Amino acid sequence: MNRTEDRPVAVVDEHAHAWSPEEARIRFRAGLTGPTAGVAAGHTQANLLSVPRDWAYDVLVFCFRNKKACPVLDVTDAGSWTTALAPGADLRTDLPRYRVWRDGELVDEPTDVLAHWRDDLVSVLIGCSFTFEWALSEAGVPMRHIEQGSNVPMYVTSRQCRPAERLHGPLVVSMRPVPPTHLETAIRESRLMPEVHGDPVHCGPPEGLGIDDLGRPDFGDPVDAEPDDIPVFWACGVTPQAAVMASRPPFALTHAPGQMFITDARDEQYRVA
Amino acid sequence: MNRTEDRPVAVVDEHAHAWSPEEARIRFRAGLTGPTAGVAAGHTQANLLSVPRDWAYDVLVFCFRNKKACPVLDVTDAGSWTTALAPGADLRTDLPRYRVWRDGELVDEPTDVLAHWRDDLVSVLIGCSFTFEWALSEAGVPMRHIEQGSNVPMYVTSRQCRPAERLHGPLVVSMRPVPPTHLETAIRESRLMPEVHGDPVHCGPPEGLGIDDLGRPDFGDPVDAEPDDIPVFWACGVTPQAAVMASRPPFALTHAPGQMFITDARDEQYRVA
Repeated sequence: MNRTEDRPVAVVDEHAHAWSPEEARIRFRAGLTGPTAGVAAGHTQANLLSVPRDWAYDVLVFCFRNKKACPVLDVTDAGSWTTALAPGADLRTDLPRYRVWRDGELVDEPTDVLAHWRDDLVSVLIGCSFTFEWALSEAGVPMRHIEQGSNVPMYVTSRQCRPAERLHGPLVVSMRPVPPTHLETAIRESRLMPEVHGDPVHCGPPEGLGIDDLGRPDFGDPVDAEPDDIPVFWACGVTPQAAVMASRPPFALTHAPGQMFITDARDEQYRVA
Repeated sequence: MNRTEDRPVAVVDEHAHAWSPEEARIRFRAGLTGPTAGVAAGHTQANLLSVPRDWAYDVLVFCFRNKKACPVLDVTDAGSWTTALAPGADLRTDLPRYRVWRDGELVDEPTDVLAHWRDDLVSVLIGCSFTFEWALSEAGVPMRHIEQGSNVPMYVTSRQCRPAERLHGPLVVSMRPVPPTHLETAIRESRLMPEVHGDPVHCGPPEGLGIDDLGRPDFGDPVDAEPDDIPVFWACGVTPQAAVMASRPPFALTHAPGQMFITDARDEQYRVA
């Protein structure tokens, strides 16, 4: 075991927003870890799910049927660790932290997966809500978790995804507190970016999604809201990890929640207007 | 053989725009055939590709890698002829006309595929440009082929799709002549509908796509343009048929070009603003 809590974490520093995507990947490859919100600002970040070829069909159908949570940005050939989204990147080493899953159990959280790699792994890169944070910020919507230097809070909901072959599981959401005056803007701007989760799945009381306590997220950190803020919930690319936990494929690799793959693509490429 | 040219075609009539989706499907199930542009106006139409389960993974990766031409709206379980897009519909009978492919060769164009159905067929429903025609018309862009009562012209281009597993082939496009005064509107409105091909892949001289003669489309009918009209080309859901021709899977079913599956979904559901 090599879990986050067992050792000191090198936190991404305040200059990270100005790094180029390649610079960020080189640092993560060298062992730097931490949440990537705001890193290499303006460049698209992605969720990672790698499964054996035997399970890849199930994953792709699951993604098509749950497009809001799992918008696919790229699919690799089996065994390949390269992606058209970042030529020169190595998917085995260039994320800050990974999760290794066996039979649905988290067994390791290493900073690279060289020792776990298999020749039959198909990697699916899935859009991330960090991408629309750029558009929301530009439009004046405050991003509380970035201001507070913390990872976005994520919650497992009571909504089930549409199952696909051997995969099933609950919808996972990310939450951002939004002032009422900015709610319409937040909805409109994220809707214009359908490949990175699009508009919210829910605004308002967390009970609507079966979430008991916003102060205790299932992934990421709690965020401090202003008194009038409305909790706004977007479908989250951690949803495939919840499907892995529920469906127990024999083996899977993912990113650690909030510690994403940084691509060479620009956020504005995913905006349709 | 049961090809279009061998027998009279019952053409969809001028009242067809007012049919409900179910009414349209019942008529097609009963044997009515013809291009579906404008039929059950306001309801989303879809391209069909059904392949044996053994080829379905190749198709899904191909669709993800060529999303502009192949935006997937639904994937069925193997053997199932039902879709979440139109509960009650039967994918084996409810399209006006089908194409049956063996080893990449067109072997039949029946009005149902009951005799060809297999228990291992996975059906993929792909977005269709007829969906954004609604938005373009609403915005005042003339739709020449609808005015002329003909099928939209489609062309095989010199651009190759990104290959996936055993599938490869050229990009197919649909073309609409657009007055210069409406060009910006046509681009903006279609861009807002990324799940039904989004914005054009090319505007202007057809040579840019390796198309020699607009008067001789590879599928559909030629369309008469006004003198100032600019030819505008959108990625087309017939692209998977071109991949079937090029890649020669042992068996596939598709819709006949321009004779689509009519879903219960509304066109505006696919507009992101």
